[in-house]
Formats: sequence, structure tokens, C-alpha cells
Amino acid sequence: MKILDIIAHKRDGRELTTAEIRWFIEAYTAEQIPDYQASALCMAIYLQGMSRRETVDLTLAMAASGEQLDLHDTIPFAIDKHSSGGVGDKTTLVVQPLVAACGIPVAKMSGRGLGFTGGTLDKMEAITGWRFDMDLAQFKRQVREIGLVLAGQTAALAPADGKLYALRDVTATVSSIPLIAASIMSKKLASGADAIVLDVKVGSGAFMKTVAEARELAQRMVDIGHDAGRQTVALLSDMNQPLGYAIGNALEVREAIETLHPDGTPPPDFWAHCVEVGAHMLLLAEAVDSLEEAHGRLAEARDSGRALAKFRAMVAAQGGDVAQVDDPDLLPRAPHVAAVAAPRTGYVSAIETDGVGIAAMNLGAGRAKKGDPIDYAVGFHLPLKIGDKIEEGQPIATIHARTAAQIPSATAELLSALTWSDEPVPPMPHSHGTVESQK
Amino acid sequence: MKILDIIAHKRDGRELTTAEIRWFIEAYTAEQIPDYQASALCMAIYLQGMSRRETVDLTLAMAASGEQLDLHDTIPFAIDKHSSGGVGDKTTLVVQPLVAACGIPVAKMSGRGLGFTGGTLDKMEAITGWRFDMDLAQFKRQVREIGLVLAGQTAALAPADGKLYALRDVTATVSSIPLIAASIMSKKLASGADAIVLDVKVGSGAFMKTVAEARELAQRMVDIGHDAGRQTVALLSDMNQPLGYAIGNALEVREAIETLHPDGTPPPDFWAHCVEVGAHMLLLAEAVDSLEEAHGRLAEARDSGRALAKFRAMVAAQGGDVAQVDDPDLLPRAPHVAAVAAPRTGYVSAIETDGVGIAAMNLGAGRAKKGDPIDYAVGFHLPLKIGDKIEEGQPIATIHARTAAQIPSATAELLSALTWSDEPVPPMPHSHGTVESQK
Repeated sequence: MKILDIIAHKRDGRELTTAEIRWFIEAYTAEQIPDYQASALCMAIYLQGMSRRETVDLTLAMAASGEQLDLHDTIPFAIDKHSSGGVGDKTTLVVQPLVAACGIPVAKMSGRGLGFTGGTLDKMEAITGWRFDMDLAQFKRQVREIGLVLAGQTAALAPADGKLYALRDVTATVSSIPLIAASIMSKKLASGADAIVLDVKVGSGAFMKTVAEARELAQRMVDIGHDAGRQTVALLSDMNQPLGYAIGNALEVREAIETLHPDGTPPPDFWAHCVEVGAHMLLLAEAVDSLEEAHGRLAEARDSGRALAKFRAMVAAQGGDVAQVDDPDLLPRAPHVAAVAAPRTGYVSAIETDGVGIAAMNLGAGRAKKGDPIDYAVGFHLPLKIGDKIEEGQPIATIHARTAAQIPSATAELLSALTWSDEPVPPMPHSHGTVESQK
Repeated sequence: MKILDIIAHKRDGRELTTAEIRWFIEAYTAEQIPDYQASALCMAIYLQGMSRRETVDLTLAMAASGEQLDLHDTIPFAIDKHSSGGVGDKTTLVVQPLVAACGIPVAKMSGRGLGFTGGTLDKMEAITGWRFDMDLAQFKRQVREIGLVLAGQTAALAPADGKLYALRDVTATVSSIPLIAASIMSKKLASGADAIVLDVKVGSGAFMKTVAEARELAQRMVDIGHDAGRQTVALLSDMNQPLGYAIGNALEVREAIETLHPDGTPPPDFWAHCVEVGAHMLLLAEAVDSLEEAHGRLAEARDSGRALAKFRAMVAAQGGDVAQVDDPDLLPRAPHVAAVAAPRTGYVSAIETDGVGIAAMNLGAGRAKKGDPIDYAVGFHLPLKIGDKIEEGQPIATIHARTAAQIPSATAELLSALTWSDEPVPPMPHSHGTVESQK
């Protein structure tokens, strides 16, 4: 097997064989193939594409490039979820305790974030003392004892993906549907998921800007899941506006706790989204017979206080300060808080959600590059949705900043992300449907 | 300027700006861009192509990446030729002395060979003592004194091309028309050519297998020459059969001397080709008013013995043994010489010229990889052309081998490259026309 032949085959638009793909991933992981050859192959894949069979082979090869978790000695069925990421997406923080409170154990590995705000791990670290580093024995013990664990993704899982992703990131080959699909699914397969709910975001705050692109990515991923023998469903979730109201790590934890709380008043879009994701997880886990039944179970898990109790138990088990769960006022708070007034009367017709995310990052809520520190306290509270009728001067957002000097630029960045209309604007749908495997 | 943006622009099929191309070549030459990014860009260029303007910019940037020769303090007008390479192509050995003998000084830099047989420098090294390493002062002195010099191409000319070519060679991005054109032309521009005759080979023994491909490459190169202010013409020369009869370094030197000799009987196709190339060189140098006039001048240069004398003077000036020029029997000779008999009666309808070249390489005449030694003595004498009528048992070739054990495999490889027909077959044309710049 020669790497030069493999590059040439893909360059010429040919389908790579299973053996070629396996050999490439094994040799690249073993550092027997230099980066300059792997990057030429990535660009050829980017421009020539990959068939369903090739994408499945790539995913399986990457999943097999390191340790492969098997949780069946601990739980009968491992259900996982994945979000393609967006602004204000704190779904995992709420869905996991909800599902766990319905009796389905959730053992999840997650990652840090890059861009807008932190990833799930970063958000959770806003809780003082909370840690995600643990060994496999502790991971399994916690899921056995409380049915809920959230750990950092170990580098030993799908190391080929980590290596290839780092290379794609510096060679303009990230935004390839087959490569994205294989990257996401290889980690899910390696972490031992029997079933996977994929939350594919679409819109101005998502990687996929159009429903067509998002559907293509979702289709690839559910097909990979199916062909790899895992039950997989994808939801196409709207990201043309931030999810919920809170954007920023501690602010999002606070909103997650509010959403889990029996007496809480969660943002309706966020609660609806959590219920949708959770219902599909319960359905795949065969804990319910229908989505309607699942909706009832999830609402009951919240209303009973069991979901919040699960969250609290997880925080405690992982070293976090449960006083902050019981009283979110104790979470990190920014020293400078300022209201933003509507500059005009009218209807919000569009939100440049990327712009809101970048404004939050500029406040310190997210990382511009790997290793940058995160300021847990800062961000926005933006209780504003497309279609809302607003009066000039009405407060539309709250800025949480580290310094007073940041307020004017954050205000300007936030306002420049909003488009207004004099005519009524219909609200955006929360969902653009689901995608299942084409057998 | 960011390399990631440049890669993404080309990936998305956009035209790179002059500034982007210059910046890339400068930064890559200065080792400020890692190979894995350059190879991703090469693959994007391979698959998305480059416009005429981009290709010219790339060529000029590569030419400007190192020293740029200016010979105008030595000769009034620098004319150069380039062959895209083939089997039995010893044209430079004959054309240079012919043109020099017509009063047009020729100062050429050439390269070593890879594949089939050696390059021009390797062939010349079959002459005992001949050297091509010299400094610029010596190079200029020799062209002033005898009007003819053949030196090795210095690494200081177009270093970006050397670096990029080495990368393309290991990333399956060699066979891109704009990249090939820029590579060849950057070296010609950097070596100070005022006018260039390009000998683009086409056929089973050439890189370009079809006239359409060869014409596309030729058009790119003459357009670059035009846009860079150099008079340039390209000849599309047939390479569906070896050029002349000799294949192998000393055998080709011997055939070149035979061709230059007033009393020699050169292979008609080879002499015709040398006259065509030489005539275009004389025309571009304005030494003649027409190709017809050039044909007469070149024939006279040979018939008078002046062309052979030029060759002899160049050999002497570069340390070679002129006794071998005067008596080619003194050139290196292989210990084992065997005739190959025709396996059948019929007409030769096709020659897998690549196969003949590889058979010569297997005998030791060429290099499989850089740095391999070359056996100057070995090769084939194959006085056989497509369309020839042959009787079974008639000798059709002579094998010159280092060991007797090589004879059977060389015979088999040579014969397997021949296709036969019972019906008469028309001879192949030597030329497929010329290509000039589309202004």
C-alpha cells in the first residue's frame, strides 16, 4: 500500500477501498505518514468527496485507532447525544439530568470549546471545584452509583481524529461534510454509545448556515451510525438566534439550573429543545413507546425535582460546590452589569447569531485560540427572539462584563447583530425536522 | 496575508491575487510556511486550476525566489530550449552545437535525469572527464570564447521551484498543467533566456499522452513566456516511439556525434527533429528570416564540420576526452551485446515507448530514484519505426548489457513493448505542429 497511490486515487475522484482507508488511518496514527501527505489527501477528499461506504470506513478506522470503550459491564445500554454547537447551547447540562432522572443512565464524555463561549466542560467549570478528569474506574463507578457522569474526552479515544482534526484546522479542510461526519461519529463510536441523538444546528450561529447543508451532514452521520450498528437519529435545530437567553458560562449554568428547577421559568425555546432531545434519547433507549410519552416523563422528572437532584448529585460527585446549585447567586458574577436599550421601535427580523457569539467571546466568555483563559462570569442575557415587538428604549439585553470599558463596544457589537423591521415578522421555528438513516 | 485564507480561496475555486501568490512563494521559500499547508494548496491548485494570470504570477514569483541570471554583459541575446523529456531524446547534444556553429551563442543550464535514461548532463558524463560544475565567471568566459557552454543548473536559480517540486513529487500533485508550466518556465526565466523554444513531447513515451494535453501545456508555457516578455514558441513533438535509434547514455552520445558528423548517417527522424528545433532557435534569435533559410544554415553547419568542431571544443573546455569524440568506439562499451530477432513477420503498429524506457532503466541506463548510479554503457539500439515492414527472424534491435544474465529479460521487455499488424501501417508524424502565444 502506498500513500502516493491513495492520494492520487482520491485526487482523480475514485472511491478509496476499505483497505486503503484503514491503512492510511493506521499509518498516520503511527506517524508513518508525514503531515504534508495527509493534508494533500484531506484537500483531495474535501474537493472530491467521499461515498457513504468510504465515510463509514473512515469513521470505523478512526474509532479503532485507539481505545474503544465498552460500558456494558456497567450499564445495559449506553445512550449519547452530540450537538454540533451554537450560541447559548447549554442543552447537555439540562438533558442529561432529565434523562438520568427518567432511569436511563447517562455516561458522557465531552470537550472544551473554541469560539463563542466555552464547551460543556468549560460551562460546568463555572461551578467552583467541579472537575471532569477521572479514570475509567471512577467514570463507571459514578454512572453506576448516581446514573450520571460527565467526563472529559480522553485523548486515548480516536487519536486519529484528534491528529487529523488538528491538521485540517491549519489546512483549510475543516468544512468537508464527510470529514466532519467521520470526526464526530468516530468519537461517539469509540466512546461506546449504543444509540446516539445528534443535535445538528442550522442557521446564522451554526457551522451549517442552510437547512440543506445541515440535512446533508445529518444524513451522513445517521447513515454512519446505522452502518456501524448504532441506532442514530438527528434533529435539525434552529440556530438563527441564540438558544435560550443566557450566553456565557456561569450565566448558562444559571439558566440550566433555572430550567431544571421545579419552580423555574425556563426560556420556552430552550425547554422545548431540551424536551425534544431528551425524548429522542428515551425513545432510542426504549424507555418509552412514543415521543408523547417521553414528553410527559421528562416534564415529570423536572416537576418532581428529581432532575435537579440528579444534576446536584453529579456536581457533588465531581467536586463541585453544591451551594452554587442551591443558590445560583453564588456562581461567579461579573463586576459590571449594564442594560442595553432598544435603539428603535419595531420587530426583530434577524439576529446575526455568529456576531452575538463573537461579542461574547470578546467579553472573555470564549476562546479565540486553544489554551486561552475563559472568564466564567461574563456574557449576555438576551431575552429577545425573532418576531418580538420592541419599543424604542425598552431594555432588550444585559451585558455582564469584567471592566466598565467593555460595555460600550459590547453594546455596539450586540446591537449591530440585530436587524429590525417595521412590519410584523413571524417567529422562527425551533426545529427543522429530524433525519433518520436511509437503510 | 494569511496562508489559511489563500488555501481556502483556491479551495473554493477563486482566483488568487498577485499579492497572495507572491507572498506565498516568498514565505514558503523562506520556510515560514510548513509543507503541510503548501501541499494542501498544491492539491487545491491541482483540482481547481489556475488562470493564465495566476500562472504567470506564480512563474514570476518562483523565478524571483533566488538569483536571476543576466547574460547581456556577455552575449547580446540569450536563446534557450527546453524538452519535456522522452526516450532517446539527445536533441540538446546536437542542436546546441548546430546553433552555435551558425553564430548564435548558446549558454545552457541543464539537469540530471530521473527515469528512462539519464538527463542531458548524465549523457554528456558518458564522455570521460566531462564536467558541468562551474562558477558563473567560467560559464560566461566559455560562452564568450567558444559560444557554447552546458552547465548544471544551480540550486540558487528558482529555489522555490526546487522546494515545491520536491513537495509535489511526494503529494501526487506533479501532473497539474499550471504547476508544470510554472516550474519549467520559472527556471528558464531565472536563467536569463530572452527567447525560448519549448519541445513538448507527446505520446506513449512522454508525460503528456495526448496531443490535446500537450497542446494545453504548451499553450500555458508560451503564454507565460509572452506575458513575461520573452519570445517563446512550442513544438509538439511525437514521442510515440523513441527518438532516433539509440537509448542509453554513451549510445546516445555516439548517435549525437554521428548526427553532427559531416560524413555521418543520422536517423532521419532525429535529424529532422534537431533541424526543426534549431531552426526555431535561429528564427527567434533573428539570425534568419525564415525557417527554410534556417534549415539551409543548419545543414551547412553540419556539412562543413563546424557543428562537430563546436561540440568538440565544448567537450575540451569542460574537461572531456576529445579522443572519444574523434573515435566514438572509445566511449564506454557494454561487455555483452546481443541482437534481438523479430518474433514474426508484419508491420510495427505501435511501440509502448514508456516500456522501452523502463527496459533501458532496468539495464542500468536510468535512475529509479534520485542518487542511483547510472551505467553509461548500457541500453538499446533500436533502428525500428512504426510502419516498418519486418520479416520474422530479422534483427530489429541490439541490447547492450552489463551482464549476460540481463539479456533474456531485456529482450522480453523490449518485445513486449511492440505491437504488430498484418496490414500496412502508416508512419507516425514527427511533429504535431507548433503553438504560439495567444496575445
